Amino acid sequence: MNILYVYAHPEPTSLNGSLKNFAVNHLEQAGHQVQVSDLYAMQWKATLDGSDNLDWQPGTPFNASLDSKHAYAAGRQATDIAAEQQKLRWADTVIFQFPLWWFSMPAILKGWFERVYAYGFGYGVGEHSSSHWGDRYGEGNLAGKRAMLVVTTGGWASHYEERGVNGPIADLLFPIHHGMLFYPGFEVLPPFVLYRSSRVDEAAFAAACNELGQRLDTLHSTTPIPYRRQNAGDYDIPALTLRPGIAEGQSGFAAHLK
Amino acid sequence: MNILYVYAHPEPTSLNGSLKNFAVNHLEQAGHQVQVSDLYAMQWKATLDGSDNLDWQPGTPFNASLDSKHAYAAGRQATDIAAEQQKLRWADTVIFQFPLWWFSMPAILKGWFERVYAYGFGYGVGEHSSSHWGDRYGEGNLAGKRAMLVVTTGGWASHYEERGVNGPIADLLFPIHHGMLFYPGFEVLPPFVLYRSSRVDEAAFAAACNELGQRLDTLHSTTPIPYRRQNAGDYDIPALTLRPGIAEGQSGFAAHLK
Repeated sequence: MNILYVYAHPEPTSLNGSLKNFAVNHLEQAGHQVQVSDLYAMQWKATLDGSDNLDWQPGTPFNASLDSKHAYAAGRQATDIAAEQQKLRWADTVIFQFPLWWFSMPAILKGWFERVYAYGFGYGVGEHSSSHWGDRYGEGNLAGKRAMLVVTTGGWASHYEERGVNGPIADLLFPIHHGMLFYPGFEVLPPFVLYRSSRVDEAAFAAACNELGQRLDTLHSTTPIPYRRQNAGDYDIPALTLRPGIAEGQSGFAAHLK
Repeated sequence: MNILYVYAHPEPTSLNGSLKNFAVNHLEQAGHQVQVSDLYAMQWKATLDGSDNLDWQPGTPFNASLDSKHAYAAGRQATDIAAEQQKLRWADTVIFQFPLWWFSMPAILKGWFERVYAYGFGYGVGEHSSSHWGDRYGEGNLAGKRAMLVVTTGGWASHYEERGVNGPIADLLFPIHHGMLFYPGFEVLPPFVLYRSSRVDEAAFAAACNELGQRLDTLHSTTPIPYRRQNAGDYDIPALTLRPGIAEGQSGFAAHLK
């Protein structure tokens, strides 16, 4: 497979750096083609702004959506954005590795999504009608590809349990899994999460690599998170609420699982 | 009151810019002292890295927590970080305004939290024992202050309802409300959310300003979201799971509401 590994951690000698090195080596040993986007090493520009549209003139109004739409359609995007889109087109599977900072991804990676997911590429795709509300949530330019998160946390596993103080890890990751990966079409695999990162000793690291290695060996066969497709009949359009009789009596993130 | 207005949108002439101008004027007219952190205008550095600790030497290992701890304790933080911390100390209430991009805040604002919330300031505060797990989730350096989000979305209100395809807005904002604002001690007010931002005409903008004005007039008296305090008896320590008998049978984000 062609695998894109998007990695966001500032320190190569960190636990995250070691985990990334393990994963990339493991994938290459298994015969996969791997490209790595090491966002800190690339000094990735985190902030979406007018300069992302090469036709934008400083001093004129910038519209995040419309400038992105124009630049994408006209081939006038900043070159770093276009290069990442090309990697996404090339990839069969994309892995995103990052430390959970303030219950979400680091800013540098958030800015990768904001900039690389251009209008016409990551959103604003497909027709809007009374039966189809854009190619999104299960359809889109990244349909047919798989994605998986590899996440480390400082907190303990229990802090992220169903009744843990931080909130359940599945719910904390829902805006990423569902809103950023399923949205443009990815099939989203269950995440690999390594807790209490500051206390990972040699034995715990070996165990983590063993577990992660198994996840990497089964990327093609792991059952994705069964999110409901937006345009497949479960949602009223254009309200985009679950239809009566679908997940009856349920609400919240979990209602979007089949 | 002293009010800090943290604002993250790239375009001054946008809906967000107009809403921010309205809010700041409204607060000043009401006699409040207002400081604005306009992150795009400030060219805020979004990416947390070694240069945030003035004592860090390039080429040596960078540890996000320990470098932050040292720099904060030694007065060796990057000056932009220290300046924002000083504004937070000064403020009685902090308002964060941003467009919801990919179901969270823009990268530039995420980077504000990552860098300004230093170890010893935003986290890593207080003792850890069998009855107290740090000054956090209701305690901390920002206790006694109030915070409120002002958020715009491209999607419709129905898309963010309890059974809407995006997930409920309250759950999407929980990692911010609970994990980033309640965590260091803020009392968190219900958010002001303006939906379908691209279709806000003059009448809708006037209505939004009217509603937002009422929220700004009642900052001091609005009942905060009733999150459970971590160290007040509802959680087992150090597992930090809700104790049996507390929110019995409940799990997920809502279980952390009293």
